[in-house]
Amino acid sequence: MIQVAILGCGTVGSGVYEVLSMNHDSIAGKAEDTLEVKYILDRKDFSGTPLAGKVVRDFSIIENDPDVAIVCETMGGVDPAFDYSARALKKGKHVVTSNKELVATHGAELLELARQNNVNYLFEASVGGGIPILRPMMQCLSANEVSEVCGILNGTTNYILTRMIRAGLSFEDALKEAQQKGYAEANPAADVEGHDAARKTCILASLVLGKHVYPDAVAVEGITGISLDDVTFASSMDKVIKLLGRVVRQEGKVFAFVSPHLIDKSHPLAGVEDVFNAILVDGNAVGQVMFYGAGAGKLPTASAVVADVIDCARHLHLNRFAGWQDSKENLITPAGEFVCSYYVRFAAADAAAVTAALAPCQTVECPQAPAGQAALVTEPLSGADMAEKLAALGGKALSCIRIL
Amino acid sequence: MIQVAILGCGTVGSGVYEVLSMNHDSIAGKAEDTLEVKYILDRKDFSGTPLAGKVVRDFSIIENDPDVAIVCETMGGVDPAFDYSARALKKGKHVVTSNKELVATHGAELLELARQNNVNYLFEASVGGGIPILRPMMQCLSANEVSEVCGILNGTTNYILTRMIRAGLSFEDALKEAQQKGYAEANPAADVEGHDAARKTCILASLVLGKHVYPDAVAVEGITGISLDDVTFASSMDKVIKLLGRVVRQEGKVFAFVSPHLIDKSHPLAGVEDVFNAILVDGNAVGQVMFYGAGAGKLPTASAVVADVIDCARHLHLNRFAGWQDSKENLITPAGEFVCSYYVRFAAADAAAVTAALAPCQTVECPQAPAGQAALVTEPLSGADMAEKLAALGGKALSCIRIL
Repeated sequence: MIQVAILGCGTVGSGVYEVLSMNHDSIAGKAEDTLEVKYILDRKDFSGTPLAGKVVRDFSIIENDPDVAIVCETMGGVDPAFDYSARALKKGKHVVTSNKELVATHGAELLELARQNNVNYLFEASVGGGIPILRPMMQCLSANEVSEVCGILNGTTNYILTRMIRAGLSFEDALKEAQQKGYAEANPAADVEGHDAARKTCILASLVLGKHVYPDAVAVEGITGISLDDVTFASSMDKVIKLLGRVVRQEGKVFAFVSPHLIDKSHPLAGVEDVFNAILVDGNAVGQVMFYGAGAGKLPTASAVVADVIDCARHLHLNRFAGWQDSKENLITPAGEFVCSYYVRFAAADAAAVTAALAPCQTVECPQAPAGQAALVTEPLSGADMAEKLAALGGKALSCIRIL
Repeated sequence: MIQVAILGCGTVGSGVYEVLSMNHDSIAGKAEDTLEVKYILDRKDFSGTPLAGKVVRDFSIIENDPDVAIVCETMGGVDPAFDYSARALKKGKHVVTSNKELVATHGAELLELARQNNVNYLFEASVGGGIPILRPMMQCLSANEVSEVCGILNGTTNYILTRMIRAGLSFEDALKEAQQKGYAEANPAADVEGHDAARKTCILASLVLGKHVYPDAVAVEGITGISLDDVTFASSMDKVIKLLGRVVRQEGKVFAFVSPHLIDKSHPLAGVEDVFNAILVDGNAVGQVMFYGAGAGKLPTASAVVADVIDCARHLHLNRFAGWQDSKENLITPAGEFVCSYYVRFAAADAAAVTAALAPCQTVECPQAPAGQAALVTEPLSGADMAEKLAALGGKALSCIRIL
């Protein structure tokens, strides 16, 4: 029997307990041993529930119990998750997590601790929830040099954009609906401003480069500036608007950023709707492959956490996943140097000034254009050049979105 | 340095050589050793090419060279691929393959030989070409009980159906186009009659069950009976026609079959077009996840073969992949017991007879209906019941297709 501790019994932690119970026998077959939850660390009151006998309030009980071989850190946040994870690894316990914030900010340190203690620090659940992505990238695509990873990494914003596109809701109404359905938090900033997607982009970039990429290297733009007018112009170009996290190689440089993009309706990511996530990987042998599924939610996320638990259980005395090294170098080129075409919307009255400033460019033909508005598509240019031209236009550009 | 032999230097084999050369250094990093191709077994004349010095015509040279640690069997077919694979495994060499026919017919035997000799028999490339699917199913989804695997497993038929749907080509014209583009063979039977998809379905079923499922257990229906009229009726129902390989649990029974299906345009598999493949897995924790990419082709397939080579190289003295056991039991219930709704097309003149025989059923409203034709959708019923009703109708049903 292999004993497991769960740190934090919220949505994901309780899902981990549920999956370990529900599929107990088949999991035992795959882990080649039974897995039992010995402790649950949580401050909530579980009296009267089947969990009551397992609940502890003091992490040192778990830390100092040599029977606990695997710790699931499903608390979220950096403090005290970082401290607990580090202490567990130092005691020779495997740690698996769904905590993208912790992996994005302290991943290299925790991976190093895992190596030193011959255990694993695994985090398949931290990107794309239940979607297998980190292992397939590391193992199944290992014959490839990866030129791009590009994903819909946040279900909340994808739901909002889907409702704007499909139902014609405004951003505000779509956000309200997402909150009512439990897809968005009361304070939705981390989602709609792109920070959640940026943390996942850090993790993907670190995997691609083999060196830790910290959040401050990832330029972030959310979807709060997207209007229904943009959705209408995009549609007339046979495109949809999606919030993408991208890690891209361009002319020898590596970029990592999060921003809304116009993408062709025929692109594999365009059909990814509602709260679903998908990640597209472009490799020099395989071409484009895509991984699609539920990017969040109790049982899908727990599915990925428990897969990591099973992997640890099968290799109790082995550091199987080197992950990446820490790095003081600046590996990511500022997004201002990334070259792409842009879509720009403006008042029709400003057409002469805007098209002159952004020439060469192409006007968007849009029979459904909102009254008094127009849009254009630029030639490829750098983010810095674009910013300069927009500044010179002094607010005449009402929106400006990258085109994939 | 780890030495590799390639058996068969056709499309896939030459792709394996190309990927190993093109990404030599990054592959060495991931394999933790350099990989060198020592031999290529092929009857073709390579004189004057860089491969000339590596070509051998006699497998026993490879078999008896203790320096060869990994054999890539990219010959296809059963004979002599089975003999060579078995002999390589018996000599303690890892074998990786893209040969779905061999895995579907002799997988259990070769997996057993690999176990006995403490090496691996790996075949990620045999299903979905470059798409990671076997490893993600075994590892990343290991916390789940899988209720269904359902895939577009054959690029040739998906291309033909896409051209029928998108361009209004007849089956015959779409097939001719696929042949001109090199997507279909001169003799397209193995593809269009569903046998290629059936072999891949065997492999997926064996993985789900942990026991070998042989091709004769998989009922197969191809796309030769699909007409543009069916495409038109499907479209009026907001559906498309796709050839699916399915492994499904239904009321405690397991079914495995290949047949055309009508699927909703909003279904994740509906957007998989042209020669692309995709496999959807339904697990009781993760829900639906989908894997998408190039299901065939030189470099994509080689990408998967080389990933297996790297995995073997990293674990030279370890049987890491148990795979499945042989089984004399009949694990697959005949498709005649599988219950689903059907779409049926018929001459409008026969409407009374057909609707009476298939009642309760619902007529398909189709403003673009071909002259003199009509269609209906049945309630869920078993394949055997449906076959009986169709027989009683004596050819009045012009087509009959499962609905997903």
